[in-house]
Amino acid sequence: MATIPYPHFIGSEKSVMEKGILSPTSSSPPSSVVLTQDELKKIAAYKAVEYVESGMVLGLGTGSTAKHAVARIGELLRQGKLSNIVGIPTSKMTHEQALSCGIPLSDLDSHPVLDLAIDGADEVDPFLNLVKGRGGSLLREKMVEGACKKFVVIVDDSKLVEHIGGSGLAMPVEIVPFCWKFTAQRLQSLFADSGCVAKLRNFPASDQPFLTDNGNYIVDLYFKKDMGDLKAASDAILRLAGVVEHGMFLDMATTVIVAGELGVTVKNK
Amino acid sequence: MATIPYPHFIGSEKSVMEKGILSPTSSSPPSSVVLTQDELKKIAAYKAVEYVESGMVLGLGTGSTAKHAVARIGELLRQGKLSNIVGIPTSKMTHEQALSCGIPLSDLDSHPVLDLAIDGADEVDPFLNLVKGRGGSLLREKMVEGACKKFVVIVDDSKLVEHIGGSGLAMPVEIVPFCWKFTAQRLQSLFADSGCVAKLRNFPASDQPFLTDNGNYIVDLYFKKDMGDLKAASDAILRLAGVVEHGMFLDMATTVIVAGELGVTVKNK
Repeated sequence: MATIPYPHFIGSEKSVMEKGILSPTSSSPPSSVVLTQDELKKIAAYKAVEYVESGMVLGLGTGSTAKHAVARIGELLRQGKLSNIVGIPTSKMTHEQALSCGIPLSDLDSHPVLDLAIDGADEVDPFLNLVKGRGGSLLREKMVEGACKKFVVIVDDSKLVEHIGGSGLAMPVEIVPFCWKFTAQRLQSLFADSGCVAKLRNFPASDQPFLTDNGNYIVDLYFKKDMGDLKAASDAILRLAGVVEHGMFLDMATTVIVAGELGVTVKNK
Repeated sequence: MATIPYPHFIGSEKSVMEKGILSPTSSSPPSSVVLTQDELKKIAAYKAVEYVESGMVLGLGTGSTAKHAVARIGELLRQGKLSNIVGIPTSKMTHEQALSCGIPLSDLDSHPVLDLAIDGADEVDPFLNLVKGRGGSLLREKMVEGACKKFVVIVDDSKLVEHIGGSGLAMPVEIVPFCWKFTAQRLQSLFADSGCVAKLRNFPASDQPFLTDNGNYIVDLYFKKDMGDLKAASDAILRLAGVVEHGMFLDMATTVIVAGELGVTVKNK
């Protein structure tokens, strides 16, 4: 779990430049270069793609970090450095991106066991439990990533939390639209002791409810305090009729790659 | 839990005739009258409606038994024997029926606590656990009936089973359409020890998948053997990403009214 400074992890500054992460004119040590959050995401994504081997069935994640991994896999296919890859996208958006990158696609019905999935996360706790789904694809992501032998999570270091919900940002729950207020209220009541507030997610800059790829709504839960036993919390949420799935991914990640200003950290389960 | 022969339960043969359950020409003891399954359903439904009081918020069930209760409630409203009833329908079909019967309707968002729900069931075990949803409305039924102070279940005696799944008929699971084969396979594998077979439900006489009111599919599970611990089975099903809800209603019924050839039995939790 040691943090590896960038020159070692990517081999040479030349390859850093090839990847377009650092500018060709950069001559100072990488650790002193100020990287944007998107550059950190890209570094984590490229590192994860090193786990990909020809012939693999791959889960393709969704979101601003995962898109770099999908693009990189497409690039390596075009360069002939990878072959015989089958991708299983976790959203309609990723499906489109992967098609445009020339990655052959299939689905879980045809490939119920995947070799590897690569995806971002919204929170990562010290035990590699995750919050995912702020992008809205939690259900398909959980189906695909739950079917993988290895699940590599890629984040910048802003996503590390002491405990799930600890970022103060949303823990999403996908629910059926039928009587959504009732379900939202029950979710909030479930975690009253943790100061939970439940909010229906709308499309950005709209008062229309956000719709998932499955035609459902998302209720975002915000916690003021640690919710405690995560497995108990997970079962309690799933037992509510009206809930389809939640964004806690417990005991699923096998590796988390964290990109920060000082380098890349690889955490294994 | 004693079985009450029909003359006692309904007070007099005249009232039996009024209800149209026995023909006016019947003069033999009711226990020797051969009643059809639909007549038994109607008897159970009418008995359940005796629990309804003016001013109640009522969950209105779905299916061939519940429809008799909805019709009876409408009749009593028209006769002025009930008033100030608010109905919460458990399906679009019941919504339509209740409207046509003149029952004022609302929803869970406006009435998150209900006084009483009346609904049929597909199986009832000795502990009053149920299988519901062969009609396809399991999710809305579970949401509404889970919010009730009292839940009265009405069945003919063909629905009594030794254990859940014991009828050899379907235990339905509502799932998202996305990669439904994958989810069906996982459901079947979950209960491999019980000889479980999972089948996608189609619309009757069609090869098109049945769609629930929520736009989801139904996978019917058929068991050869007792699945054992029902709460563990419930949690295991709900933990599968892709599952929305299942048709086991555990610890929910407060009363079960069973109509059989020999009379009506009322079982209380």
